[in-house]
Amino acid sequence: MTARQFVHFNNAGAGLMPQAVTDAMTECVRREAAHGSYETELHYDKILQEGVYQRLATLLGAPARDIALFDSATRAWCSVAGRLRLGATDRVWVTPFEYAGNLISLFELRDRTGCRIEVVPLRPDGELDLDWMSANISDDVALVSVTHVPSGCGIVNPVAEIGRILAPYRCVYALDACQSVGQLRVDVAEIGCQLLTGAGRKFLRGPRGTGFAYVAPELRASLTSDFHDLHVARVSSPTGYTVEDDSARALELAERTTAAVLGLHAALGHHESAPVAEQQPVAEALRATLAELPGVELIAPGSTQSGITAFRHRTLSAQDIFHGLGTRGINVWQIRGDHTPLYLTERGVDQAVRASVHYYNTVDEVAVVGRALRDLIGS
Amino acid sequence: MTARQFVHFNNAGAGLMPQAVTDAMTECVRREAAHGSYETELHYDKILQEGVYQRLATLLGAPARDIALFDSATRAWCSVAGRLRLGATDRVWVTPFEYAGNLISLFELRDRTGCRIEVVPLRPDGELDLDWMSANISDDVALVSVTHVPSGCGIVNPVAEIGRILAPYRCVYALDACQSVGQLRVDVAEIGCQLLTGAGRKFLRGPRGTGFAYVAPELRASLTSDFHDLHVARVSSPTGYTVEDDSARALELAERTTAAVLGLHAALGHHESAPVAEQQPVAEALRATLAELPGVELIAPGSTQSGITAFRHRTLSAQDIFHGLGTRGINVWQIRGDHTPLYLTERGVDQAVRASVHYYNTVDEVAVVGRALRDLIGS
Repeated sequence: MTARQFVHFNNAGAGLMPQAVTDAMTECVRREAAHGSYETELHYDKILQEGVYQRLATLLGAPARDIALFDSATRAWCSVAGRLRLGATDRVWVTPFEYAGNLISLFELRDRTGCRIEVVPLRPDGELDLDWMSANISDDVALVSVTHVPSGCGIVNPVAEIGRILAPYRCVYALDACQSVGQLRVDVAEIGCQLLTGAGRKFLRGPRGTGFAYVAPELRASLTSDFHDLHVARVSSPTGYTVEDDSARALELAERTTAAVLGLHAALGHHESAPVAEQQPVAEALRATLAELPGVELIAPGSTQSGITAFRHRTLSAQDIFHGLGTRGINVWQIRGDHTPLYLTERGVDQAVRASVHYYNTVDEVAVVGRALRDLIGS
Repeated sequence: MTARQFVHFNNAGAGLMPQAVTDAMTECVRREAAHGSYETELHYDKILQEGVYQRLATLLGAPARDIALFDSATRAWCSVAGRLRLGATDRVWVTPFEYAGNLISLFELRDRTGCRIEVVPLRPDGELDLDWMSANISDDVALVSVTHVPSGCGIVNPVAEIGRILAPYRCVYALDACQSVGQLRVDVAEIGCQLLTGAGRKFLRGPRGTGFAYVAPELRASLTSDFHDLHVARVSSPTGYTVEDDSARALELAERTTAAVLGLHAALGHHESAPVAEQQPVAEALRATLAELPGVELIAPGSTQSGITAFRHRTLSAQDIFHGLGTRGINVWQIRGDHTPLYLTERGVDQAVRASVHYYNTVDEVAVVGRALRDLIGS
């Protein structure tokens, strides 16, 4: 690994792309300008139509035909969860860790369909109350939306246990895995979810503008009608059309940034040979360092934490810390409470700092960040 | 201009990106890998949040706040036309030149809303029958969808005249300008449309996966509710959200491929200083050359043609010609009749060859293509 002149603790925003990814993207763009962009797409046809789906399928333990690509995880979410066929008697469960973007789409779904949204309670230790879920689940529940690792705090939710609770019931189990794919093992068969959405740019170290979904066949068949593009449908008469592909790709539009899809493919290839979960010792060192700093409050509910740590300081604003560390060559991110509103806003957190580490980060970097924070705090 | 070793007559698929575009994209990707992708987005904030919208606004003669960016022109179309609030008494007009992708979304809109779709007739010379439009327009017509330059044949439709016919009526005038922006002057105020969709990759010479729309304020206000992402909305209570931006950007999702947006910005900058309509002499030379070839039938309805020319041969298939020219270093494209179904399929054209020239193409290249075709045809 080449030495970096800065510390990148913003992997929950976007991980650093390895050279295999930037090479794939740069070579694609070069070829497009030299030979034509459609001609380049044909050149990479096998990767674009099969390879990238196969790698995502391998990553997620899913059949390739159940994978769809999008320009973001949010697009993936809206293209499926936003099209659930619900009615006024349906209940939707979310957790306090629900991402605001997903939550807004569920509010809009509620406003359209009349369904009722309920929040799964937490236990006093901050873990999701699985006993409550077991006691209250019924076939009135049409959708259970769980965030594997929330972007606003690092808890790892027990997604496979939740899957076992929900399995006997009719609900769609939807998992937002944006912050878990690439740093944790994520296998849809083990988890038992029917929808999984993820982003390429975070712990998979892929390009901006790449998202994907695993969508189980029975879920696809139950969605409300939406647009079908020409890669899966054709006009078959002056007044009608036929859809000729019932794979998850029917949820996509045909056009996309070829370089970004090739970059995602390269990132997935790189990930297959990359270490997994090695960020844990670094993340634990970071939390230990932060916990010792005067005036710092960790936002770390529950018993299991990921590479993501959120914190705030008694007097310094999140913006002060973000900028102060930035000028010292340290990338962290300033997060908004209302992006994880049912947890952070409810606890009076408007702003916080998020530091998120990946397998390439080191305990030496944690020491650098610790010193910089002491310097900022003036302790 | 550097000498090319091949002839690119596939500009209606995608134009060749100039170096300013590939440089912008490559530099973005390099910076993302070196400094972080969120950090790079902040670095380019002014371009990404303002500059690219301003350049599109200048191109289209529209206010910047009426411009939205998407990952494709089809996404732009579906995000607006697919959300029109129609009912069973509404009529929708399309032309025989309607692009199949748009048409499918209108079929789906019809199936959801019960609206009626009617096809504007052509005159015997292949031009849209404007007298029919004038005689039949009424306030029952909710949407008129016109393709400025169809991708399956090169006719240039009289979009400003249509705008004058429609102006007194309540209909939304939607213009698909995918194949016209960059090769023709396109000004929404002159045209009088309320929706215009376009692609960055064709005659603007931008990247794959870039689309945009001009959406008039009154049209935005009339759309059915859909998802709002966190760049324009926020969760304001445990059960609700507020939309804080009523510009056209409310139609976008927040995440996108930064490099592609920067590439589009560079393409628009390059276009501002590029010649416009210079492709006409080359296109006319091409049509004259094709017309002289034995067995070749030009598909060129109407009186005004653009840089796009479609043709077929009495005995050689479109695939034979596409591959035969390809092996001779000439990029054309094999088009499907059912992608312009109400014109080509209706006339028994299943397949055709499309040759499309831009201002950088030359009459010398036309001669090269003419010789290659004679060689293929064996004349």
